[in-house]
Amino acid sequence: MLGILEARPRVGYFFAGKDPKNLISEKMNDIKVDKIKSVPSVIKEDTSVYDAIVTLFLTDVGTLFITDKDGNLAGLVSRKDLLKTAIGNADIHKMPIGIVMTRMPNIITVTPEESAYDAARKIVDHQIDALPVVKAVTENDQEKYKIVGKVTKTTITKLFVELGKT
Amino acid sequence: MLGILEARPRVGYFFAGKDPKNLISEKMNDIKVDKIKSVPSVIKEDTSVYDAIVTLFLTDVGTLFITDKDGNLAGLVSRKDLLKTAIGNADIHKMPIGIVMTRMPNIITVTPEESAYDAARKIVDHQIDALPVVKAVTENDQEKYKIVGKVTKTTITKLFVELGKT
Repeated sequence: MLGILEARPRVGYFFAGKDPKNLISEKMNDIKVDKIKSVPSVIKEDTSVYDAIVTLFLTDVGTLFITDKDGNLAGLVSRKDLLKTAIGNADIHKMPIGIVMTRMPNIITVTPEESAYDAARKIVDHQIDALPVVKAVTENDQEKYKIVGKVTKTTITKLFVELGKT
Repeated sequence: MLGILEARPRVGYFFAGKDPKNLISEKMNDIKVDKIKSVPSVIKEDTSVYDAIVTLFLTDVGTLFITDKDGNLAGLVSRKDLLKTAIGNADIHKMPIGIVMTRMPNIITVTPEESAYDAARKIVDHQIDALPVVKAVTENDQEKYKIVGKVTKTTITKLFVELGKT
């Protein structure tokens, strides 16, 4: 009952002023991205579009994250990006994924310390499928990001079911 | 505070025995599919794969629902189904979507009366992106389904954010 009724010595319980709506919100803010993040599928910038599509199917994911030669986040591709390229006239065996991916800094990221609610809000506000979970590092005086996980609509849907279990 | 503290005449408030976890679960079960469902993108069985892909982009959805000549649910296609077909050797301008779609009865559906929790659980358990919301009708002694909406991972993620707002 923590959060609804609180104990005070010699006074007994008193109503802490929180309603159930706020408790749900508190719970969603308590759960951190670090706890719910899953394993991302990561490929290199010079991977061909065809090999990227194969990786998408073999790892059974909806979004691929792409790193530069130093292993830092360079971009991402969605199933829709790949579908658009596949029906175009390009030779997907020769075209590198770096040409079709969404490139940094146009990528919405999340950190392990942010909450499940923050992550879900970013996904809804920016109308995206997946967020890379990143840790900032400084290399040659530039801020770069290492990919340490992902949070997707699947992650949030699973958490929703988890929270709803009686 | 309904559900946590309840009033009794001349006795005052008493603890109703529900903890916050159960309240979240109750809330998710109270919200019905009918209230959260969104507008589905529906195409006919003889639409070409190419036209299906165009519809996917123009309506900005992840899953297309397919009806037979009587307007009943016949199947669905995901972005992955379309991507698989697009990188194959088929002529996507000539191939009808009916060939590549997942066909009834191999489709998981939900009714408007089921809860948001039920819908989310089906999505997670069956590892799918979207559920058609259906109403059963009897035609020529056979049970058929009319599509009245959809519930997707996006729907659940939006609901999660809605519930988490303070």
